[in-house]
Amino acid sequence: MAEDSKPKLFHKELEPKAIVRPVEISTAFQGCKMEVVEIFRSGELDICLGLDDEVIVDFGHHLVGYVEFSFHVNDQPTDSPYGIQFVFGEVPSEVAGDLEDYQGSLSRTWMQEERCTIDYPSGKFQLPRRYAFRYLKIRRIAGPKWHPLYVSAIRCRTVTSADFSRVFPLRGDDSELLNLDQVSLRTLGNCMQTVFEDGPKRDRRLWIGDLRLQALSNYMTFGQNHLVKRCLYLFAAVVNDRGQVPSSLFEFPTPHASNDYIVDYTALYPVILSEYFDATGDKETVRDLQEIAFYQLDVVLNHVDEEGLVHLPENQWSFIDWCDGLHKQAAMQGLFIFALNSCLRFAGKLRLSERVNQLELIRDKMISAAVKHFYGKEKTLWLSGPEGQVSFASWAWMTLAGVLPPEQSALSYKALWVEEGVVRPKGPYLYHYVVDALFQCGLENEALLLLKEYWGGMLAKDATTFWEVYSPEDDKLSPYKDYRVNSYCHAWSCTPSYFIRRDAVR
Amino acid sequence: MAEDSKPKLFHKELEPKAIVRPVEISTAFQGCKMEVVEIFRSGELDICLGLDDEVIVDFGHHLVGYVEFSFHVNDQPTDSPYGIQFVFGEVPSEVAGDLEDYQGSLSRTWMQEERCTIDYPSGKFQLPRRYAFRYLKIRRIAGPKWHPLYVSAIRCRTVTSADFSRVFPLRGDDSELLNLDQVSLRTLGNCMQTVFEDGPKRDRRLWIGDLRLQALSNYMTFGQNHLVKRCLYLFAAVVNDRGQVPSSLFEFPTPHASNDYIVDYTALYPVILSEYFDATGDKETVRDLQEIAFYQLDVVLNHVDEEGLVHLPENQWSFIDWCDGLHKQAAMQGLFIFALNSCLRFAGKLRLSERVNQLELIRDKMISAAVKHFYGKEKTLWLSGPEGQVSFASWAWMTLAGVLPPEQSALSYKALWVEEGVVRPKGPYLYHYVVDALFQCGLENEALLLLKEYWGGMLAKDATTFWEVYSPEDDKLSPYKDYRVNSYCHAWSCTPSYFIRRDAVR
Repeated sequence: MAEDSKPKLFHKELEPKAIVRPVEISTAFQGCKMEVVEIFRSGELDICLGLDDEVIVDFGHHLVGYVEFSFHVNDQPTDSPYGIQFVFGEVPSEVAGDLEDYQGSLSRTWMQEERCTIDYPSGKFQLPRRYAFRYLKIRRIAGPKWHPLYVSAIRCRTVTSADFSRVFPLRGDDSELLNLDQVSLRTLGNCMQTVFEDGPKRDRRLWIGDLRLQALSNYMTFGQNHLVKRCLYLFAAVVNDRGQVPSSLFEFPTPHASNDYIVDYTALYPVILSEYFDATGDKETVRDLQEIAFYQLDVVLNHVDEEGLVHLPENQWSFIDWCDGLHKQAAMQGLFIFALNSCLRFAGKLRLSERVNQLELIRDKMISAAVKHFYGKEKTLWLSGPEGQVSFASWAWMTLAGVLPPEQSALSYKALWVEEGVVRPKGPYLYHYVVDALFQCGLENEALLLLKEYWGGMLAKDATTFWEVYSPEDDKLSPYKDYRVNSYCHAWSCTPSYFIRRDAVR
Repeated sequence: MAEDSKPKLFHKELEPKAIVRPVEISTAFQGCKMEVVEIFRSGELDICLGLDDEVIVDFGHHLVGYVEFSFHVNDQPTDSPYGIQFVFGEVPSEVAGDLEDYQGSLSRTWMQEERCTIDYPSGKFQLPRRYAFRYLKIRRIAGPKWHPLYVSAIRCRTVTSADFSRVFPLRGDDSELLNLDQVSLRTLGNCMQTVFEDGPKRDRRLWIGDLRLQALSNYMTFGQNHLVKRCLYLFAAVVNDRGQVPSSLFEFPTPHASNDYIVDYTALYPVILSEYFDATGDKETVRDLQEIAFYQLDVVLNHVDEEGLVHLPENQWSFIDWCDGLHKQAAMQGLFIFALNSCLRFAGKLRLSERVNQLELIRDKMISAAVKHFYGKEKTLWLSGPEGQVSFASWAWMTLAGVLPPEQSALSYKALWVEEGVVRPKGPYLYHYVVDALFQCGLENEALLLLKEYWGGMLAKDATTFWEVYSPEDDKLSPYKDYRVNSYCHAWSCTPSYFIRRDAVR
């Protein structure tokens, strides 16, 4: 079934626009900005490289695809093969320095680098892999001392399963929002391959958390609904022996599960199915997958006690946000209720009345428990853990769960801003849920402001796709000990288009 | 014309025979011997590589071709691409150490190395270039820490234009000679591609000096006469604007001349044409190329004075041998006379009587000058230069030129062995001419002894093809400042088969 819905791929031939060089500027993103050395028009590029020379070309924006180019020399004969290194960068820092000092906790193989030996510097060459990049550094690391090598006709044959011609053109005067929409579209499009990848540079995997946000943006933009269906089936095909979907899966060489079982991601599988039903009305698929979806809910509800209170599993990853010190219990309580509501929605549509009754009972119990255990009435704040930690995470998920009426949630949001020591969102994934919750409780202006502040902050730092990690205070933040291995085109940052098209401009 | 005679290529699928490891042994060739770790039968190989592991496989003998293999992992998922380095070695020293300390005067790109990033460790992979090697080192340099990579089904698809089925099987009891013949055949076969390459690892060029020896061996073995014709035409196609053939040419991307004009190589072009005529009777080709051949002789004779004495050109390379301090004038005198004799042979067959008369006059004058200026009668030695340097080079070429009757040349050879300070041959190329001269003057036993001593010395040091550079006294001798970049399958060492089949066994 997943194979049947394998999408058609779209290609474009793109050329670099300029030769650039990195300049250290403390105010630039990660302290490094690209300065234009030379702009050229289509077909004009012809770069001369002596031994040990290097050049960086700039394609103007982020893209994903296969790269080819032509070599020639002016003064045959050359006496030995040419040794060339290629380094691809989504952002300047990846190509500005040397990868030899890479210290990341993830494998260096994620840094996109090739070393090639070219026997005869003539004609077309294609590099072997798919790359995600804006910048390409070409270095002549070995070979003839006296014979410059010319590189021309650099082309990237882009690849995506997103059909940009299907995107409804936005109207409106708010150029900030229009820009956010464009960069969102590119982010989503570059992640849309034969699955919804989390990032086309890294991990190139299908993650449940990312998939939900991609699916939502996709319904509003490319409408590539078959790809969502394909991904739902792929997860169904790789459940473990107890029937639980993994948090992510690998498409190649054949689809297989990752080892991660993140509890909040498990809860989101039925949410994705329910929203797919809302978007497509595809009853057949939902019927086919409903038992798998309900099973995920069962897995999740194992962590809910008699009273309806969530207890975070101790030996399992609870994600919510990349944020040390965040107390996640209240947020998870909200997230589980949110998932229950999603299940209730499609169970209702399918007239599974017994299931509806059962789930409503649990949902109501969980709402009561939420209010009883986490809600601090005097300050209208959601509190989590023994210290009563206040966080945007708790607020967002409780709001999305609809535990309080919208106007109370709105008050609770305002209260966050006067309280001290509130744990703020760290990454785009949680920022999405905060913005979504703001729209949900009627705080549209605040939602748009946050969109413009946070995602707009990336634009102000020259993003042409949105990033996996973004902290306005620390450009070099990375969960992986080397910020260069961060993904700079990341699915979970792609939702500005969703909000703009759902709530703001259309 | 050269394109018409492009040869058919022959292929075989070969597998490695064993896993080996390098052991430092002072008595081994270059101080390094391969010790067998594990022998396996066809299809059995399945190598497990953890991060930073390396393995060396041994194909049992030298080969030239394209390499593919299969990857698999036992424990999916693996969390990142695999980074793998491949290093090919014709001899143990190339793979035993690290190439990072390479100090050669030739480009490091001649050392056969690839670095690949493998996104999905599954299925077949082919390395991008043609390799010349016996040993293949595979190192896992990056990628998943906890997931061993399995390498299996390593295959080399060999390539040669030599048809081994056409080689006449040798009879005889002298196993030393039979071994020399086998290794000669492999050396020649591995150099026979779409041209006669000097070495399939390096330079992969067509050199006149090598071509002559390859052509001679080829007539006695593979009989791939069209390939000789092709090479003669290729040289004719790339003469410089004065009509001189370069000393070597590059076949790819399109045939083009090197910048080297070695005077003795220029003289050998007509020799190759003449011997091609002897071997094939192909009058059409010889007629077609005769003017080019005569022109080379004219170029060479520009360096001969009125009296018939050769003066070495000062701004041009005179090769004769890789040997510092060798005085080359006498040898060159002999070589020019030898070339004249070759031209006289085909000019006579073509009944170019005017040309014959003209060349005979010059030849006779040069013979007189040779005796007058270089022959030391009292000691029956050939002397070159103001110091009267005695060398095997002078002796060999004067003998091959037939300046003295064979029995006198034989005496002169014996005299070399009692004289002190005689400059001995350094490389296989000159050794060939010494052996040839020994046969020429009737010293068959000495010729065979030298064959067995010198080429047999390489066999004793585990050669499975004969080398570009071999000094019995210094395994690490190299004209290129790093012996690892020497070619260990080199055309100009391929003539034992020629002698054995011409003079010894058949």
